[in-house]
Amino acid sequence: MKSINVKTSHPYEVIIERGSINKCGEYISKVTASRKSAVITDDIVGGLYGKTVEESLKNSGFECSVFTFKNGEQSKCLSTFGEILDFLAESGITRSDIIIALGGGVVGDITGFAAASYLRGVEFVQIPTTLLAQVDSSVGGKTAIDIPSGKNLVGAFKQPALVICDSDTLKTLPSETLADGMAEVIKYGMIRDKSLFELIESHDLDTVDEIMDDLVYRCIDIKRDVVEHDEFDKGERFILNFGHTLGHALEGWHNYTDYTHGMGVATGMCIITEKLASADIADRLKKCAESYRLPTGTDIPMSELLPFCSKDKKRESGNISYIICRTIGKADIVKVPVKEFARLMEG
Amino acid sequence: MKSINVKTSHPYEVIIERGSINKCGEYISKVTASRKSAVITDDIVGGLYGKTVEESLKNSGFECSVFTFKNGEQSKCLSTFGEILDFLAESGITRSDIIIALGGGVVGDITGFAAASYLRGVEFVQIPTTLLAQVDSSVGGKTAIDIPSGKNLVGAFKQPALVICDSDTLKTLPSETLADGMAEVIKYGMIRDKSLFELIESHDLDTVDEIMDDLVYRCIDIKRDVVEHDEFDKGERFILNFGHTLGHALEGWHNYTDYTHGMGVATGMCIITEKLASADIADRLKKCAESYRLPTGTDIPMSELLPFCSKDKKRESGNISYIICRTIGKADIVKVPVKEFARLMEG
Repeated sequence: MKSINVKTSHPYEVIIERGSINKCGEYISKVTASRKSAVITDDIVGGLYGKTVEESLKNSGFECSVFTFKNGEQSKCLSTFGEILDFLAESGITRSDIIIALGGGVVGDITGFAAASYLRGVEFVQIPTTLLAQVDSSVGGKTAIDIPSGKNLVGAFKQPALVICDSDTLKTLPSETLADGMAEVIKYGMIRDKSLFELIESHDLDTVDEIMDDLVYRCIDIKRDVVEHDEFDKGERFILNFGHTLGHALEGWHNYTDYTHGMGVATGMCIITEKLASADIADRLKKCAESYRLPTGTDIPMSELLPFCSKDKKRESGNISYIICRTIGKADIVKVPVKEFARLMEG
Repeated sequence: MKSINVKTSHPYEVIIERGSINKCGEYISKVTASRKSAVITDDIVGGLYGKTVEESLKNSGFECSVFTFKNGEQSKCLSTFGEILDFLAESGITRSDIIIALGGGVVGDITGFAAASYLRGVEFVQIPTTLLAQVDSSVGGKTAIDIPSGKNLVGAFKQPALVICDSDTLKTLPSETLADGMAEVIKYGMIRDKSLFELIESHDLDTVDEIMDDLVYRCIDIKRDVVEHDEFDKGERFILNFGHTLGHALEGWHNYTDYTHGMGVATGMCIITEKLASADIADRLKKCAESYRLPTGTDIPMSELLPFCSKDKKRESGNISYIICRTIGKADIVKVPVKEFARLMEG
């Protein structure tokens, strides 16, 4: 078992261990005095792991109610948020009880926001079951829902009490969902760790399971470091947004259907690197993304994507920030007027 | 102009000044570098003070969009919350801009929760226009909405950047709404300040305007002290809940219509004092409440109210806390099993 301690305002442990989902109750019983829990999951993950988690919780003495919603980004909305809140109230969850998010990024984000808001805050545990959720959304305390104007525009900073990452759960993922997460893994290598990038480069989507525990550990450790320095996203944390400004725009253009976050991030990283960094870095990044079956470009005209960029919540009035990696393993934050960004991207 | 500095994790000033609403733009311009604002109000307060606030903001160089919803507790729900969020996004409010809550407790609570959640947090200013909002909900950072299971069950701790209390705005209040706020004013005297209670006792609903600035100042100063010691409601802050456990139950029983928070608090204080403190204190409290045209008892059987008490969000599994004032100016927190509370109240 590997473990990482995240020292934010509310410190917590991330457990990385194959098979850990089977003994989650044991781990959770160490972070709460209560023995009353509510599990929030979606119909796909619930079908795969719901019983396992419920059984493990009950074996550790927990009373357990389960709420299941339909899998997919469309569920990450105010209406599901309301249903979760009603469920928590009807289940009699109090401030001292515990809420468990079992699933991918959608489940983790919306459950985290519900845990932050219900009774103005109840402790929650993340059991991320996708690679994207394990290396990105489950650690760092960003919780969110989408509104019609944009993705993740509403939420809270709420650190979990515990994160349990079981890489065995990634084996049940469709290959596109695994690829989705690999975009963020590649991002960590690009922004912070050349040797991590080289390790990723030396594998592909079919062989990556061999090194999965190592990848998950190293990515979370980078995220831990960044988040500890900038828990509330005032500056440095923006480094994690490499590829995300265009990525979010691409997701938005596709109306968040048939185009994953990872596809957006991979394409966003490749385009910005191609436009603003050296050709050999752009080339290496592109080859790496391709070996994980990720897109590296788009036919959508930049003029159609730019309006979506200026909806990014990191934007300040009139300005937009983006990340550029001029060397593999090192990233810089650049802030420019929105018009200048448009000129750079259209050029 | 009187002013109180609240030293919470995010410190801020409370301005208490007659006529201050006319120069709110000037005050707000000192707490933000941005000159883009969004005002959230209801149709009644908006009709009375919307133009004044907008004009003052514009005179201080602010761009200003206004969102108005229907007055009343029924608006403090997830659906209005969603409308406010959509409005903020459509108005292009960014993390560095400012949101202004203009109105009573409903406006302040829901706007505060929207400000806490939109982009995971934007600064906001409270301009409370009811006595209840001035002495209670606008200070201390508790924001909330109601859900079908109960009032204020969902929200966030979010301190405002500034609070502007203009007691001239209280002159436009219907007398029942003024009385509503007086219940909380009486509460402050009971729990913390005998001389404040005596000052209240020596006036009534018709003469209270003479001492209003002093009352508002003294109540907010008590709240400041309590909140500074327990910002996140872990213990001591519960003292502010004198009369509230039964009060919330009464509001709930009445389905939050035709029965105000103040009516609930006044009745709750009187019943608990009558049952558990000396007869002379109960008598004085009752007389005081009556002189502000507040109810002091109820015909609803306790057996019908108790189920609503155990929905209180302060409840831990199996226990319930309440406040008792055995001396005027001093309060104690008592925690008992739910069954014991029922026995005490039914006895």
